[in-house]
Amino acid sequence: MSTLGVAVIGYSFMGKAHSNAWRNVGAFHPDLPAVTQRVLVGRDASAVSAAADQFGWADSATDWRDVVTRDDVDVVDVCTPGHLHHEIALAALRAGKHVIVEKPLANTIEESLELVEAATKARAHGVRSMVGFNYRCVPALALAREVIGQGRIGEVRQVRASYLQDWLVDPDAPMTWRLRKEQAGSGVLGDLGSHVVDQVRFLLDDEIETASGRLETFVGTRPGPSGPEDVTVDDAAWALLGTARGAVVSLEVSRMAAGRKNALQLEVYGSRGSVAFDLERLNELWVDTGQGPTRVLVTEPEHPHVDAWWPPGHVLGWGDTFTTQAAGFLAAIEAGTDPAPSFEDGLAVQRVLDAIERSAAGRGTVELARS
Amino acid sequence: MSTLGVAVIGYSFMGKAHSNAWRNVGAFHPDLPAVTQRVLVGRDASAVSAAADQFGWADSATDWRDVVTRDDVDVVDVCTPGHLHHEIALAALRAGKHVIVEKPLANTIEESLELVEAATKARAHGVRSMVGFNYRCVPALALAREVIGQGRIGEVRQVRASYLQDWLVDPDAPMTWRLRKEQAGSGVLGDLGSHVVDQVRFLLDDEIETASGRLETFVGTRPGPSGPEDVTVDDAAWALLGTARGAVVSLEVSRMAAGRKNALQLEVYGSRGSVAFDLERLNELWVDTGQGPTRVLVTEPEHPHVDAWWPPGHVLGWGDTFTTQAAGFLAAIEAGTDPAPSFEDGLAVQRVLDAIERSAAGRGTVELARS
Amino acid sequence: MSTLGVAVIGYSFMGKAHSNAWRNVGAFHPDLPAVTQRVLVGRDASAVSAAADQFGWADSATDWRDVVTRDDVDVVDVCTPGHLHHEIALAALRAGKHVIVEKPLANTIEESLELVEAATKARAHGVRSMVGFNYRCVPALALAREVIGQGRIGEVRQVRASYLQDWLVDPDAPMTWRLRKEQAGSGVLGDLGSHVVDQVRFLLDDEIETASGRLETFVGTRPGPSGPEDVTVDDAAWALLGTARGAVVSLEVSRMAAGRKNALQLEVYGSRGSVAFDLERLNELWVDTGQGPTRVLVTEPEHPHVDAWWPPGHVLGWGDTFTTQAAGFLAAIEAGTDPAPSFEDGLAVQRVLDAIERSAAGRGTVELARS
Amino acid sequence: MSTLGVAVIGYSFMGKAHSNAWRNVGAFHPDLPAVTQRVLVGRDASAVSAAADQFGWADSATDWRDVVTRDDVDVVDVCTPGHLHHEIALAALRAGKHVIVEKPLANTIEESLELVEAATKARAHGVRSMVGFNYRCVPALALAREVIGQGRIGEVRQVRASYLQDWLVDPDAPMTWRLRKEQAGSGVLGDLGSHVVDQVRFLLDDEIETASGRLETFVGTRPGPSGPEDVTVDDAAWALLGTARGAVVSLEVSRMAAGRKNALQLEVYGSRGSVAFDLERLNELWVDTGQGPTRVLVTEPEHPHVDAWWPPGHVLGWGDTFTTQAAGFLAAIEAGTDPAPSFEDGLAVQRVLDAIERSAAGRGTVELARS
Repeated sequence: MSTLGVAVIGYSFMGKAHSNAWRNVGAFHPDLPAVTQRVLVGRDASAVSAAADQFGWADSATDWRDVVTRDDVDVVDVCTPGHLHHEIALAALRAGKHVIVEKPLANTIEESLELVEAATKARAHGVRSMVGFNYRCVPALALAREVIGQGRIGEVRQVRASYLQDWLVDPDAPMTWRLRKEQAGSGVLGDLGSHVVDQVRFLLDDEIETASGRLETFVGTRPGPSGPEDVTVDDAAWALLGTARGAVVSLEVSRMAAGRKNALQLEVYGSRGSVAFDLERLNELWVDTGQGPTRVLVTEPEHPHVDAWWPPGHVLGWGDTFTTQAAGFLAAIEAGTDPAPSFEDGLAVQRVLDAIERSAAGRGTVELARS
Repeated sequence: MSTLGVAVIGYSFMGKAHSNAWRNVGAFHPDLPAVTQRVLVGRDASAVSAAADQFGWADSATDWRDVVTRDDVDVVDVCTPGHLHHEIALAALRAGKHVIVEKPLANTIEESLELVEAATKARAHGVRSMVGFNYRCVPALALAREVIGQGRIGEVRQVRASYLQDWLVDPDAPMTWRLRKEQAGSGVLGDLGSHVVDQVRFLLDDEIETASGRLETFVGTRPGPSGPEDVTVDDAAWALLGTARGAVVSLEVSRMAAGRKNALQLEVYGSRGSVAFDLERLNELWVDTGQGPTRVLVTEPEHPHVDAWWPPGHVLGWGDTFTTQAAGFLAAIEAGTDPAPSFEDGLAVQRVLDAIERSAAGRGTVELARS
Repeated sequence: MSTLGVAVIGYSFMGKAHSNAWRNVGAFHPDLPAVTQRVLVGRDASAVSAAADQFGWADSATDWRDVVTRDDVDVVDVCTPGHLHHEIALAALRAGKHVIVEKPLANTIEESLELVEAATKARAHGVRSMVGFNYRCVPALALAREVIGQGRIGEVRQVRASYLQDWLVDPDAPMTWRLRKEQAGSGVLGDLGSHVVDQVRFLLDDEIETASGRLETFVGTRPGPSGPEDVTVDDAAWALLGTARGAVVSLEVSRMAAGRKNALQLEVYGSRGSVAFDLERLNELWVDTGQGPTRVLVTEPEHPHVDAWWPPGHVLGWGDTFTTQAAGFLAAIEAGTDPAPSFEDGLAVQRVLDAIERSAAGRGTVELARS
Repeated sequence: MSTLGVAVIGYSFMGKAHSNAWRNVGAFHPDLPAVTQRVLVGRDASAVSAAADQFGWADSATDWRDVVTRDDVDVVDVCTPGHLHHEIALAALRAGKHVIVEKPLANTIEESLELVEAATKARAHGVRSMVGFNYRCVPALALAREVIGQGRIGEVRQVRASYLQDWLVDPDAPMTWRLRKEQAGSGVLGDLGSHVVDQVRFLLDDEIETASGRLETFVGTRPGPSGPEDVTVDDAAWALLGTARGAVVSLEVSRMAAGRKNALQLEVYGSRGSVAFDLERLNELWVDTGQGPTRVLVTEPEHPHVDAWWPPGHVLGWGDTFTTQAAGFLAAIEAGTDPAPSFEDGLAVQRVLDAIERSAAGRGTVELARS
């Protein structure tokens, strides 16, 4: 039987994580279409060649344009910085390749709209596309969505959603491209806020309709390569979001929350109960359906995404979520269905972030336009 | 040596809590001025008489006007509903009595201003006044203030402050006076939000200068004594506050947070560390000065407000905070100093709540007027 | 209506805690027989007089013999060091007084047997007696007993029981009477182990039939008043206990467990679920009946011992457990029933501790004699 | 450059976990000797062939005897049931292959002794051997060892060590080979107790010298393939261990601890502090050096075994520990040093388990023979 050939574009942090997924997906999901790690792409020929060896790729290349049209490549997985997503994904879709784009879908709404349009066209020809919000593959969060969807906590009213890190606490931490607006687009809002917004939509199966927000840069100048340099993005962001079904979501994201390393924290309060989650304890979900908060170790075979892995109580790690994500993409290709989250989902997230930014710029509460 | 005669006005929940404080303060603070529980005041003669017997009072009365001028009464402690605070406290101050007013100071800013004015005049004659924000007497929160004040977490940038309860989760929970605007003034904003705002000012030793907010009533109609009745106050409230020194505070309060019974949660993030607290674990403070969050069981003799009580590890309860509060008031009377929180503090809290309400009514971000 | 006159013998740590209970019991339990704090007893006339003033007693005395026969004393509450329990309690019972003895019942089994015998005789004349294992009055532990008794965790198989403190971690911590065998009887085994054994019997409603144990003194010499002095009691103790119904209990107690301040920890595993408790979080019980460990904040009115206190979520403190204990004693006096834990319970605990000591001295597993 | 050829013997649970390690070790440790997944061995030709495909092996085989002498195999990794370890490992060592044996080293002390002897001889020829106690590779536990070794908690006095699971709670759970003494050797003692004993030796860098213990089978009969069948191994086990340096260790392991899924819990108390760990929260270590228990998220690059993986806060899973273990083995091969834990370590663990069993059979406290 033939296998699907995969190309990953990008070989740093996300390239490593996605490579890990492609290398392992078959071992945990033997019934899905088999994949071959064809080629890893990067600009530095010798570095990408070494990375390809390291991460298990048969080949490396420096020009993604050549790769996205290769006959032996069926899946293109875009792990570049955000400003390149649009061009690469468009080319890959047009070449008839299935495409995964690491989040965010794109840096602007215009680019996102074009990608949605391209994905829609491609879909008509059986080409699949997905945005890489890997936290949808955390078993505890997938279980939370089930619990909410089954009505076990009643009608959702109030969500507390935050994502707190602390790598910029030190005012002497140096300048990076992530702190320059022209390169990064935004600061923590886009980086972590996008995960939060996607999770809220995922957990609630609901749409954000209104947003008000605030952005703050606590450390305005940092040591740059040639002296002090202005930080032009946000260090922290806050928003209040209203959903179509009437829930209110408070969002808080920060790179300045001393002591929080990777704390994506979600609390969903409904008319009959609540669920709570903290990514620093990735394998746990707190479910309260009226008896008090119950700690569920989400490692049982009946829990979502767990059965492929280890026996109960043998916890998963952050890296494993990408393997599950790749499996979901392969399953959709095999079934001829559309994987989630779609490019439309990616666009919806971008719209919310955009509304928060506009509100923070003095526009009060912003009503989100429907696409 | 003579003792200070105390009168408490009100004998329900807060009357019980304050009575408990006066009954016990001498046993834990033998070096402070002794007190005598002179008289408990309420409108229902037989009920207040029974309550006086139960709570250790020598006498009961039905008219506070008679009581606040009694010669054997030196301290008047006002535990009535908020709309009566103003009249009683004014009368007591004018009679030269030391006055404690349970929070909130008053239901309106106008009343609060008059009370501040009266307290200022009385102060000139050695009369002491205080607002009963008892959570300032939680040892863990007093320790948090010390930790912050000593600069151990650096400059405060970001505060996450919430107070979550769930007693209104059920849409069939019946109407009460607390849900009628004309009686309660506001909903959870005034009830729990006032505690949060006071704590933020207390912990940070900083002033709130800007506020934006949102109020929400999730259950608009509840079973009343004569059929369905509209709820005219907020079930939940959110705000973003800016402080004079540049910190940003997110505030969230709710009576609809299923599974949270009394969760006053405070997280303060500074440039070098953080502290965190949850009232449901009243004896614990989490302190992170760079090594990770450390759980401090705040029961050591060197911790604030602890030495009077029990050996290390023997935890305090919610009721004990009022005893400490009474002790602080007595200490101020003895020392001839002004106890904290003052009526000015009470006013400052009311101003913030008022600004949140105005913002929620569509005024965008509100700049707080300086008094 | 007349009140019950109470005398407390002893005015240090336990005297303070029991005084607190008698001062407050009426305020929380108005329907029980009223009490009057008649007299506090201690050897140092001026110190006990000051303590009596402080703790709310009408009178003080230096000779317990005079007090236990006073006509205006109905209840004698023995808070002295353990070696005096026997003599005082015997005299009080013989004088027809209701008697509470702070744990342990006595320092030897012989004394305990005599006390049981005296209590049995007195019971025939309506005289009540009780041992002061106050942790039976912790709402969370009383709830745990209910949960187990209702069969909600099935048949109990395995119990992990420990009580860890750390006040002797420092090898330079000075000598005290508690570390001399002739005064203290034993070390941590009697002090904390007695609480653990009582709780196991209370929670399981079962009897200990076999015991094996080990005692250890980690710091053999400490600074005494006149130079280095040998520690003659145990710093830590371990035991395995077998119950009549076939459960196995592991017990571990220590004064050397760095970082544990007052950690009475109990985990009970049954054939269908489990419960867990930690005294440092006195208001919480973890209950697992098959869905995962659920955190129950034991502050609801339907929870045992809670209704007399505050609204849900308003936590109790360590000191409050003595008030509940006093209430239980008064309720038994009023009802003409025998309060628990009885002197027989106190004896049963002593037998277990004795068996552990004998096992630790090289006797292997010891079968407990039935009384 | 040539690579090391690896063969894994066994393809069920441990075979899957070790295959995962060999498939991934190069991606995270590119500077170590490269490996090739040569051959997976099992008795069922078609099943092992499918497993080989799934897990990334080039080949499969049904007779380990052929495999351990293949020229293209340099490393033999034994993942069979325990009773086969001895024969396979001996043959592999004699063939000059580096050998990893999954824990336990062997089912009897005699077999273990022979394996140690063979490993010693092989070592002289540069052949490496290791026992697979993978929990030594949990970053939090490796950090705990560092903290203890640096003296940061002082001299270790007391260890609470347990490993609790609950998969046998239900008395109707069916019979398996793991509950038959002739196949499994022992019950939970060997299965989980071996991990606990290895960890204690690893963390403390100390030797166990005395042991007393108890074994218990709570459910004596279970549904077997042909009717009720006797359970001939222990469901739970307890021990007290004494170390060469004077620490006392309490050990408790169980398959009947309702609600505990994989709770390897270790608490080490020293003369200046303590550390605590729970495998269900694999990425966390609690360190108390006198300020209170500090939660360390062990995901920083300076923490042991972390740097190869992800950025701070991106947690590892259970499966990742085997990759780290494989890396350690490769590093030792490259450096020409002996990896840990050695076969001697495996033997030492077996001796302790054997002593516990002998004690439980009525021998009182057992002194461990020195090898």
